[in-house]
Amino acid sequence: MLVAVDCIIFGFDGTHLKLLLIQRAFQPEAGNWSLMGGFVQPDETLPKAAARVLKKLTGIADVYLEELSAFSHPERDPIERTLSVPFTALVDIQQYETQITDDYHAGWFDINKYPKLIFDHREMVEKAKARLRYKAAFHPVLFELLPAKFTIPQLLNLYEEVYDISMDKRNFSRKILSMDLLEKLNEKDKGNSKKGAWLYRLNKKKYKANFHKVASIIPNPDIHYS
Amino acid sequence: MLVAVDCIIFGFDGTHLKLLLIQRAFQPEAGNWSLMGGFVQPDETLPKAAARVLKKLTGIADVYLEELSAFSHPERDPIERTLSVPFTALVDIQQYETQITDDYHAGWFDINKYPKLIFDHREMVEKAKARLRYKAAFHPVLFELLPAKFTIPQLLNLYEEVYDISMDKRNFSRKILSMDLLEKLNEKDKGNSKKGAWLYRLNKKKYKANFHKVASIIPNPDIHYS
Repeated sequence: MLVAVDCIIFGFDGTHLKLLLIQRAFQPEAGNWSLMGGFVQPDETLPKAAARVLKKLTGIADVYLEELSAFSHPERDPIERTLSVPFTALVDIQQYETQITDDYHAGWFDINKYPKLIFDHREMVEKAKARLRYKAAFHPVLFELLPAKFTIPQLLNLYEEVYDISMDKRNFSRKILSMDLLEKLNEKDKGNSKKGAWLYRLNKKKYKANFHKVASIIPNPDIHYS
Repeated sequence: MLVAVDCIIFGFDGTHLKLLLIQRAFQPEAGNWSLMGGFVQPDETLPKAAARVLKKLTGIADVYLEELSAFSHPERDPIERTLSVPFTALVDIQQYETQITDDYHAGWFDINKYPKLIFDHREMVEKAKARLRYKAAFHPVLFELLPAKFTIPQLLNLYEEVYDISMDKRNFSRKILSMDLLEKLNEKDKGNSKKGAWLYRLNKKKYKANFHKVASIIPNPDIHYS
């Protein structure tokens, strides 16, 4: 059996959560939109293959990658039986945008409005979205999507986008700051208002140490997750 | 590449959480302890292969199976490159015990004290344990390990065993009953005391409907999970 990986690459442009897709360069389904993927090489583990595919096709390295459960339907690839393991990648869209769009036939799409995809790739994207919602309810994973310096309103906007909800600004701010993961900078972002909003950065040490600690981040975790 | 599944089968004997292992019948490592596994067949998905392996080797069907992330090191199997996807299976040990031990070279071991396993199977077991701890903190998954009728003290004992902690009986009882998943029966279990303990059963409809709802079940979720 052939074994492949496919990358579901999420980025946040400050307003919307986006998905990076490529136009497939070979048959079957050449020219159609697809996730970025590739076969696992003889010397690679699955995570190494996913990191290589991501690096090769986008220039992006050292990003958050999470393995999802495998897609194994015997006829999912019409040419030859291929097992595919999807990986969610969370990238800072601002840092890499130019590099990506210059080098490949790739495009960022809104996660709620993206084109028809080949094979079972749509199912992979929906699974990755559900998994991101589940994970981000308890772990500070969404920071991976933000630039090095960010404001609390940007972070709030990201949570609202991921969960498709409105959140109370003051409660959100209090909860996030009480997690003791952020460092306030002596700088303001004045892009959105005259008064401006304080910029923060992630304390990487605390983030790493506390990532696996469970904390309820969204206000109402009593909703259904798949 | 060959693709296999391996089953990490957990059972609860009323006191301890147990792991079902078999003595491997073929080379390499014949006679050594191993998880139950098998190659994925041409017409099977991974979950179907796991269900088949479980059924064939134990007689157990229709049990809770959860896919874990794949084990893909290029040299994990010394004969030929084999990707293995582990599945956690939760079974009612009382229902199946005789069937299993009569038909196969199998044995139940304490999850904290089991023999040396072949290949990377120990790592699979430890990953399955960590995953079970994580999952059971938010979802009522441990009911899968109990017989059809059980007492609250049995359930408490199971949670204490899985997390290796002591829990307050009254708080636990209140939290579990407030989840509205249990039906009190007009029957007592008098195995452990003269006074006896009321027997309960799971409301399967509510269990299914509420499984993916997130509820903090253990008292202190602020501990590290992997």
